[in-house]
Amino acid sequence: MGRDQARPRPSLRRGVHRFRNRARRRDGNLERDGADVDHPRCRAHAVHQHRIRAGADRVIVRAIGLLSGGRTVVPGRVRRVDRGKVVIEKFLSADARNLRPSAIRALAKYINDPKVISFAGGSPNPETFPAERFAAIADRVLRERRNVSLQYGPTRGLPRLCEFVAARSRVKSEEVILTTGSQQALDLISHCLLDAGDIVAVELPTYIGGTSAFYARSATLAGVAQDDDGIVPESLDDVARKKRIKLLYTIPNFQNPSGRLMSQRRRDRVLEIANRHDFLIVEDDPYGDLVYVEGADTTPIKSRDRDGRVLYLGTFSKILAPGVRCGWIVGPKSLIDRVEIAKQAADLCSGMLDQSIIDEYCHAGELPGQIENVRAFYRGKRALMLSALQEHFGGRAHWTAASGGLFTFMTLSDSIDTASRIETAVANGVTYVPGSPFFVDGSGQNTMRLTFAKESDERLREGVQRLAHVFA
Amino acid sequence: MGRDQARPRPSLRRGVHRFRNRARRRDGNLERDGADVDHPRCRAHAVHQHRIRAGADRVIVRAIGLLSGGRTVVPGRVRRVDRGKVVIEKFLSADARNLRPSAIRALAKYINDPKVISFAGGSPNPETFPAERFAAIADRVLRERRNVSLQYGPTRGLPRLCEFVAARSRVKSEEVILTTGSQQALDLISHCLLDAGDIVAVELPTYIGGTSAFYARSATLAGVAQDDDGIVPESLDDVARKKRIKLLYTIPNFQNPSGRLMSQRRRDRVLEIANRHDFLIVEDDPYGDLVYVEGADTTPIKSRDRDGRVLYLGTFSKILAPGVRCGWIVGPKSLIDRVEIAKQAADLCSGMLDQSIIDEYCHAGELPGQIENVRAFYRGKRALMLSALQEHFGGRAHWTAASGGLFTFMTLSDSIDTASRIETAVANGVTYVPGSPFFVDGSGQNTMRLTFAKESDERLREGVQRLAHVFA
Repeated sequence: MGRDQARPRPSLRRGVHRFRNRARRRDGNLERDGADVDHPRCRAHAVHQHRIRAGADRVIVRAIGLLSGGRTVVPGRVRRVDRGKVVIEKFLSADARNLRPSAIRALAKYINDPKVISFAGGSPNPETFPAERFAAIADRVLRERRNVSLQYGPTRGLPRLCEFVAARSRVKSEEVILTTGSQQALDLISHCLLDAGDIVAVELPTYIGGTSAFYARSATLAGVAQDDDGIVPESLDDVARKKRIKLLYTIPNFQNPSGRLMSQRRRDRVLEIANRHDFLIVEDDPYGDLVYVEGADTTPIKSRDRDGRVLYLGTFSKILAPGVRCGWIVGPKSLIDRVEIAKQAADLCSGMLDQSIIDEYCHAGELPGQIENVRAFYRGKRALMLSALQEHFGGRAHWTAASGGLFTFMTLSDSIDTASRIETAVANGVTYVPGSPFFVDGSGQNTMRLTFAKESDERLREGVQRLAHVFA
Repeated sequence: MGRDQARPRPSLRRGVHRFRNRARRRDGNLERDGADVDHPRCRAHAVHQHRIRAGADRVIVRAIGLLSGGRTVVPGRVRRVDRGKVVIEKFLSADARNLRPSAIRALAKYINDPKVISFAGGSPNPETFPAERFAAIADRVLRERRNVSLQYGPTRGLPRLCEFVAARSRVKSEEVILTTGSQQALDLISHCLLDAGDIVAVELPTYIGGTSAFYARSATLAGVAQDDDGIVPESLDDVARKKRIKLLYTIPNFQNPSGRLMSQRRRDRVLEIANRHDFLIVEDDPYGDLVYVEGADTTPIKSRDRDGRVLYLGTFSKILAPGVRCGWIVGPKSLIDRVEIAKQAADLCSGMLDQSIIDEYCHAGELPGQIENVRAFYRGKRALMLSALQEHFGGRAHWTAASGGLFTFMTLSDSIDTASRIETAVANGVTYVPGSPFFVDGSGQNTMRLTFAKESDERLREGVQRLAHVFA
């Protein structure tokens, strides 16, 4: 830093400097390890790879939170100089330098206390998993068909399961590929379609697994406004006029994190804009089957796609279980063929035991009943959450009605910063996910994502009360 | 083609032209679909994206074989113009344009006839899979621990299984990450380390899953000579002098496809050269536990790595089963941390049921006994194969002694082209993998890979006899 003293420092550089001194005070052993902080905001302020001597990742991550005014969108990359002679950093690819760890996963480490009621996380509730049926099926496919369930399989996926998915989506089997969860679908699509700097339009807010797959290809993300009906067409059109969008990433059904359902009229408009500006649409639909309210129309954009413009992503994670990793892509054959080759290089094939179990389960006709069970399970929890929010936050916040899915999204008054209160919340025995990580433009500091999936009814009520206390 | 008539055409362009006419004759419906042939050799001869009207993939793939003189290294990319209005091709990333389908997988389609004795393929024998034990364990982990076996899990892998792998490799747990098979390990390493045009040194011949992961990042591959002791140090040194190698990909133990075991002396030399020229080593070791001959020393290069230069890849695919997708990377913590973030974007986590089963199995101490069983199973088949080869090919070919692994590699007289005889072989009820797809320099047309893993003892003997007939 010495040489920089003469130059005027932008505020963030000053912040880094301040933190370094602060960190020094906290930890006597700070000079021992070298660590680089490389935060998007740091980069924006031209303090790229500014070196900070510090003791622990945790301290640094928190410091970045402080530096960016408590609005840590992504906790940034923390680098450590290797102990060995080889400095791996200099071998990293450009894409690897752009990798950003999930802010939510980072959060998860601090929340393993059963005393803490969790509205954070995005996992489905294990009580909904058809574990007993899976056990019976696993026993059979392992003993009787080991040459399928334990062997390498087709990259495209188990043929009968591909056909099941295709029939359910009313497409041809050649337009389907099974993937290792729908995260792999995002990764493969990114691989096949994105070069560094390509522009992906995403909703404000949007799912972090989506943005991480796009960042992993060094794509540039452009935020598009949403309202209660989903994407605001004027905003999308505006972005598309200003920038050459390659694809739009959208989650029309009970979006993660917003919980919103895009209206069918808006879906028409979005497709029309995509046609006009000639970009592709990645339609991610993990929650489409989790409908709790009559009349919620979840018909995918894909169903009105005549041109092969929409790539539809589905998954068994929320209606069966995510531990058996199985998602899928529906798209034009020419792209699916290319995705298959990319998947060959990515993992040869997805888990064959997983696919065998799911295939048997679906083939036995058990999926519709299971979906009914899952809906019934979450329907009650959703109602509880919404009425508790009304009781404790009515009049001073608003939140998504969430006619399906796993989340409601709450917006508090502008002056509140939800990220800065997470430690207070944990201390008060409740957690949530601060909303700003979901906004690629860094906004949303007064929002939070709440899942009603995890907790018991009693804890759910209690949790909202605790939350109200934190934001009293 | 009209406009090109005046210009002198290189031979391959003439070949494409010739094929088009030939394809027209074979199939009356050829003009219906549009397809582009984009073969590496075509590109080399400046006939990039030359358009050919043709009816079927199969015909095109075979045609490419013809075009390249029967030496089809990689069957090239076959593109079809979309039926919809959106032409996906124009949206493809540069890396996707570089994707190459596996020549071996393409071959697999034609070989599903039980009358054909197969020395092709690289899958382990299902008789070695511990299916009964897995069934019992699956039943337990599904019924009793659904919140682990069916839920999302840590990106890094199930902690106890990570620790097991780390202990087995005598490294710290923080130096290990579990992956969706070791193909994903190759993919993640490629993602983290390779930019387009980076140079990866690979053995001649080498594993196609490795090269496909490197090609998927648009890397440039440089071949390094091998002899019966493994990599020829002078060749590696020579390549490193001429080119800035970023990493060396090597399979020291019972290589795929060559079956060779690199001597310990050579491993020293390879590491020394890597130190001198400062490149990383990716040491892929799927077969290290499959030792059939006393005195075969499989000590990994990683074991002498003090600098964090070697990334070691292991897998349960060959000692347990590949359908439960579980491999791992051992490497310096700084890289493993980065790989973890890349994996977050790639699939969030690997299959948790798979990991739970393998974890229980290993924790119960059953792995050493299983490895002994697998060794015993293949030991006999290997001996049979080698003695049958001696009987039928003695004096007119040579092959690898294969003290472990699943393959022997046969080299016939220079005038023989194994790729051109594959159809004759299938007609004679036997298959193999032509060697040239494994050579990144396009050589090896007189070689073939033979696996002794798949067939019964009787069929194994019979198959070699049929093979001798084909190459009489």
